[in-house]
Amino acid sequence: MNHQDRWLLPAGITDALPDEAAHLEHLRRTILDLYATWGYELIIPPMIEYLDSLLVGAGHDLDLQTFKLIDQLNGRLMGIRADMTPQAARIDAHRLKRDIPSRLCYLGTVLHTRPTGFTGTRSLLQVGAELYGHAGIESDAEILALLLTTLTVTGVQAFHVDVGHVGIYRALVEQAQLNSEQESLLFAAIQRKALAEVRELLTTWQTPTRLQHQLTALIELNGDVHVLNEARRVLQNAPDSVQQALTTLEQLNTHLSRYTLHFDLAELRGYNYYRGLVFAAYVPEHGQAIALGGRYDNIGKAFGHARPATGFSTDLRILAELTTVPSAKKTAIFAPAGLDANLQATIQQLRQQGERVIQALPQQQGDAKAMGCNRELRWQAGHWQIHALS
Amino acid sequence: MNHQDRWLLPAGITDALPDEAAHLEHLRRTILDLYATWGYELIIPPMIEYLDSLLVGAGHDLDLQTFKLIDQLNGRLMGIRADMTPQAARIDAHRLKRDIPSRLCYLGTVLHTRPTGFTGTRSLLQVGAELYGHAGIESDAEILALLLTTLTVTGVQAFHVDVGHVGIYRALVEQAQLNSEQESLLFAAIQRKALAEVRELLTTWQTPTRLQHQLTALIELNGDVHVLNEARRVLQNAPDSVQQALTTLEQLNTHLSRYTLHFDLAELRGYNYYRGLVFAAYVPEHGQAIALGGRYDNIGKAFGHARPATGFSTDLRILAELTTVPSAKKTAIFAPAGLDANLQATIQQLRQQGERVIQALPQQQGDAKAMGCNRELRWQAGHWQIHALS
Repeated sequence: MNHQDRWLLPAGITDALPDEAAHLEHLRRTILDLYATWGYELIIPPMIEYLDSLLVGAGHDLDLQTFKLIDQLNGRLMGIRADMTPQAARIDAHRLKRDIPSRLCYLGTVLHTRPTGFTGTRSLLQVGAELYGHAGIESDAEILALLLTTLTVTGVQAFHVDVGHVGIYRALVEQAQLNSEQESLLFAAIQRKALAEVRELLTTWQTPTRLQHQLTALIELNGDVHVLNEARRVLQNAPDSVQQALTTLEQLNTHLSRYTLHFDLAELRGYNYYRGLVFAAYVPEHGQAIALGGRYDNIGKAFGHARPATGFSTDLRILAELTTVPSAKKTAIFAPAGLDANLQATIQQLRQQGERVIQALPQQQGDAKAMGCNRELRWQAGHWQIHALS
Repeated sequence: MNHQDRWLLPAGITDALPDEAAHLEHLRRTILDLYATWGYELIIPPMIEYLDSLLVGAGHDLDLQTFKLIDQLNGRLMGIRADMTPQAARIDAHRLKRDIPSRLCYLGTVLHTRPTGFTGTRSLLQVGAELYGHAGIESDAEILALLLTTLTVTGVQAFHVDVGHVGIYRALVEQAQLNSEQESLLFAAIQRKALAEVRELLTTWQTPTRLQHQLTALIELNGDVHVLNEARRVLQNAPDSVQQALTTLEQLNTHLSRYTLHFDLAELRGYNYYRGLVFAAYVPEHGQAIALGGRYDNIGKAFGHARPATGFSTDLRILAELTTVPSAKKTAIFAPAGLDANLQATIQQLRQQGERVIQALPQQQGDAKAMGCNRELRWQAGHWQIHALS
């Protein structure tokens, strides 16, 4: 292998060089500080776990996306986390074991075996918040408000959030009594919003007319809050669980009246995983969601402690791509080389005040400017003084 | 698998629950802020890379400690990083390609296939700093001063640092013309400071008397700066490179006269890797080093850009074990449930001021105290006011 190849990184795997790393670190602190003020406690789940616990409550997709490892100590199969949500649920259910609501947040690397998302990455810096132990609309509203605030404080421009409820589609499909092959055909067509295809499938299967009408209507039931009125009309003969789901959506809109929500009854992202409200955030230039969330009650059951749960997660790298570095320019002071005690004390004092001070190394390449400094220390009138670089 | 087993983590793999995670986050920020004021730029190397680049310049031990993965996209062998230093060297040599000195720092998870260190962990939060592009004593002195400052600002008590120089042992062994089996026997005995065993080995091999005397003496050449005078005497007939190494150690002591250094000429940790000065930090209660560093010039050569290099790294989890959480107690304000606009505005304002505000969820388990709050919002005299919990 020659020098040119040796440093190549695998596809979808990247370094963050100083400018990008500083931006990521700034976003990281902004977000974790925000979550702390809302009472969300940071947890740090491990990078690897036994596969069983990593994949609890997760679908086949997450399994495919998970790198597998053998534990040399006992031959058991481990995985590198591809999603931190099941880890947070495990920690809530089995480590914290609280009866009171738990507000948890996390931030860390997750790896995927194959590239995903609009960046084609295999290494995400997943950041998310989860609220365990409360089943009402208030916890959904809090989580969605926290996601909206996350996007606002990090400076993401022109985002909007689609809100749906997987219970509506679930109830209609159940009534239609489709087999599993039909179900996945229909699901794919609705996800693509392929109206003609959905019509044709339902006609071919001789699905009852009311259900045909209602399932087809889901595709067009998207827009502002008036969509919910329209949905009440179209779905008036649908089962009780559909009416309850619509009530939940109306309540959410009341709780978050200070935001403009966008409703989409065909929003089914994470259908296998979520159990109630679902939401996804978008920005105009990208087709794929930049954040996902919703209610996923009772995943903790697998760990012996079922709890209502609602939460969201996003990717710090995507937020970095959608935001600009804070304008405060990096400044630094160049100090001459030398062991002079007075100089050492001055440097130490400036650093303790938060100044960046770079001390010259004898015979080094590059002057103060080349080292990114805008000021320098000069000995003048018996003191080390800071001067602007000319 | 039953519920009790499902949540068990692999040996040496741990969760950080809220208290520990808060402590780690506090240390993380303290350290990265310190490095920023010294001009060290944060980089974020990836969790996985192709094995070739991960193991550049590293010995067999690192290979054994590295988890291997297959890249599904092309069948090539990848590894999970077990050490971030080669990654930093790759970034300096092949991504930044600077001629001026580069000061880089990093902090992140590294995984080991087998438990190491006094905690028996397989998941370290490695944090380190590296200075590339300068070969003189001043860069070694800066790096060692930064390590000492790291341990001081994080609050590690009663640490001391052993300084050695691998060039001394290397030159003597070269003169003794040992075969590779003899070399590894001698190396192991000197590492264990097994004086009688070293004497016996050298006698058996009929090593020249002067070299026997000098190699044996290394074991006892440890203590304060006076050890260097003693070393000058014992090693006066040793090759030039040994004299130069002693000069380097004397210069280091001059540069860091504000610290008390401890010298140990049998300090050979990282012998295969380091090329000059080496140092290791210890605390009384643990036999194993809590931080390691030294000069490892020219590792960048493998990436097409050889550069002098000196640096150190430690483990954030070990620093957390050796320090206490800052005394500032976590405080929070409990707010009643409700959509009252005035209440919402008050909560938002308090959070923007940095207060932690937890809003009650209707019918939730647990009161303000159970939720960890020490104050609450009450409606009084036409305002939402903060009251201490009685």
